[in-house]
Amino acid sequence: MTNEGADDPAALAWRVAEAMRAADDAAAGAGVELLDVGPGRAVTSLVVESRHVNGHGLCHGGYLFLLADAAFAYACNSFGVPTVAAGGDIVFLSPGRVGSRLYATAVLRAGSGRSGVYDATVRADDPEHGEVVAEFRGRSRVVPSLPQVPGV
Amino acid sequence: MTNEGADDPAALAWRVAEAMRAADDAAAGAGVELLDVGPGRAVTSLVVESRHVNGHGLCHGGYLFLLADAAFAYACNSFGVPTVAAGGDIVFLSPGRVGSRLYATAVLRAGSGRSGVYDATVRADDPEHGEVVAEFRGRSRVVPSLPQVPGV
Amino acid sequence: MTNEGADDPAALAWRVAEAMRAADDAAAGAGVELLDVGPGRAVTSLVVESRHVNGHGLCHGGYLFLLADAAFAYACNSFGVPTVAAGGDIVFLSPGRVGSRLYATAVLRAGSGRSGVYDATVRADDPEHGEVVAEFRGRSRVVPSLPQVPGV
Amino acid sequence: MTNEGADDPAALAWRVAEAMRAADDAAAGAGVELLDVGPGRAVTSLVVESRHVNGHGLCHGGYLFLLADAAFAYACNSFGVPTVAAGGDIVFLSPGRVGSRLYATAVLRAGSGRSGVYDATVRADDPEHGEVVAEFRGRSRVVPSLPQVPGV
Repeated sequence: MTNEGADDPAALAWRVAEAMRAADDAAAGAGVELLDVGPGRAVTSLVVESRHVNGHGLCHGGYLFLLADAAFAYACNSFGVPTVAAGGDIVFLSPGRVGSRLYATAVLRAGSGRSGVYDATVRADDPEHGEVVAEFRGRSRVVPSLPQVPGV
Repeated sequence: MTNEGADDPAALAWRVAEAMRAADDAAAGAGVELLDVGPGRAVTSLVVESRHVNGHGLCHGGYLFLLADAAFAYACNSFGVPTVAAGGDIVFLSPGRVGSRLYATAVLRAGSGRSGVYDATVRADDPEHGEVVAEFRGRSRVVPSLPQVPGV
Repeated sequence: MTNEGADDPAALAWRVAEAMRAADDAAAGAGVELLDVGPGRAVTSLVVESRHVNGHGLCHGGYLFLLADAAFAYACNSFGVPTVAAGGDIVFLSPGRVGSRLYATAVLRAGSGRSGVYDATVRADDPEHGEVVAEFRGRSRVVPSLPQVPGV
Repeated sequence: MTNEGADDPAALAWRVAEAMRAADDAAAGAGVELLDVGPGRAVTSLVVESRHVNGHGLCHGGYLFLLADAAFAYACNSFGVPTVAAGGDIVFLSPGRVGSRLYATAVLRAGSGRSGVYDATVRADDPEHGEVVAEFRGRSRVVPSLPQVPGV
C-alpha cells in the first residue's frame, strides 16, 4: 500500500482488486467477473451456464454463494488492509436460470474494530432492478498479519 | 418414487442421489464427489486444486460452501420428497490448502413441517477426525410441487 | 383487514402494529417501545436498564435480539398478511451500555413468494447516526392460515 | 482462575457459571435457570409465562433466542477464558406454548484459534426427547483482555 493509495480510496480499491484478481484462479475460473469496485463496495457478475446448473436445472446454490462471496471479498479488502471472510449467510429467493446474467452488489453495512458486516444482493439480468435471486451477508475479519496480496 | 423405495430408506436415498448426480453438472464439474448417502445424511468430497484457490492461496470460500451445500442437497432429498435449499450459513474456521482432500458430512439436525435444518462439517484429510475447515448449516424447504428429478 | 386498510398502506401498518402491541406482553414487558411503523418497516426502542445487563455489565445479547426481532415482527406484518419469523441472525458489533437508549430500525430488503428478508440495525442513542450495536437479519414466512391478530 | 480450576475442568465450568450467574441480572430476570454446565456445554431452562408471549399467543422469538444464548454463554465461558458472543443464528421450528417448560442444550461444535461454534437446541418439556422448538448456532470469540467475571 503506497501513499498514493491512501490519498485516493477509489484508486486503492482498484489496485487491491486487480492484485486479488491476478492471484485468484477460483473466481475467474468459475466464470465470475469483477465489474466495479470502490471503498467498501464491489460488483461481480456471472452468466449461468450449463456447468453451473444443479439437478433441478437451476444455478447451483454454491455458485450463487461464490458469486456473492467474491463481491464481498473485493469489497472488504478495498481499504487496503488484509481482510478475510469469517463466514456468511445466504437466503435463496428465486432461481438463477441458464443463460441469465447474474450480478452481485456487495456493500459495507457496518464495522467495528476488526469486524465488518457486508451485504450482497444477487439479481438477475439487471444489477439494480433485476429480480432478487439471493441475499448474502458476509462477516469479515481484519487480519493485519496476513501478507498483502502481491502487487498492491 | 416407487414402493420399493418407500420400503427401504437406504436404497431410496441412493436412488435419489444417483438421479441427482446424473442431472447435476455443477457439483461434479466443480470436483465434488458423492461418497456416501443415507436417510437424512450424505458425505461429499473435493480435492483442493489450483482452480479452487483464491488470492491468498487458499480454497475459495465459495467452493467450501459448494462442497457442504452439495452434501446438504443429497441429505435433504434422501427421503424421496423434492426439497430445496432455502438458505445456509457457513463459518470458516481454518484454511483448505492445495492438495488437501476435504470431506463434508451433512446430517439432519431437526425438522418440522416442511422445514428442515441440516448441519455439514467440512474437514481436511479425514472425514471424521480431520481438522475442521468450516461449519455449515443449511435450511431446507420441502416443495411437493417440484418435479422429481428424472430417474427416481 | 378492511378495504380501508388496503387503500392506505401506512394506516394499515399502524392498525396491525397497534393490534399486535395490544396482544403482545413480551416486547412491552421487556421495555421495548414501538416508535414508528410503515409498509415494510418499523422502529423500536429500549433503554438499557440493570435488568437487561449480563455478567460483563453490558446489554444481554438476548435483549438486543429481542429488540431487533420486535421491529422485524412489526415490519413484516405491516402489509396486513399474517407473517411469522422463520429465523434470524444477529452480529454483535459494540456493547449496549446501561442508560443508553437503543433503536432498532427494520426494513424489508427483499421478498419472493411467501419468503421475506428484513434487515434491522440496532444503534445507540441516535436512530440514524448512533454507533451500530448490532446488525440483525430476519427471515419471514407468510402464513395465510394464521389467524389475524384481533383488532386488525 | 486458580490452579485448582485448571486441574478440574468440570469444577472450573461450574465456578465460572456461578460467577456469571451472580453478576447477570438479565437471564435470571427473564426467567432463565441454569440446570447444568460442563466443559464446552450447558443446559438452561425457562417456563413460558404470559410475560414471554407475543401477539400470536406464543413464546416471543426474542426469549427463545435469549434462552439459547444464555446456554451458549455459559458453555463458551466454561473453560475459564473470557469469551463473548460474536453473533448467532436461530431457526424457529415449532411454537413455545404458555405453561411449557423449555430447555436449551448448548454444546461446543468446533473451535479454531479464538473462534468457536456452539449449537444449542431448544426443546419443549423434555431436554433430550421433547419437540424441537428452535435450533440456535452461536459464534464465540475469545477476548483474553476482557476482565474475568468477579468470583472466578
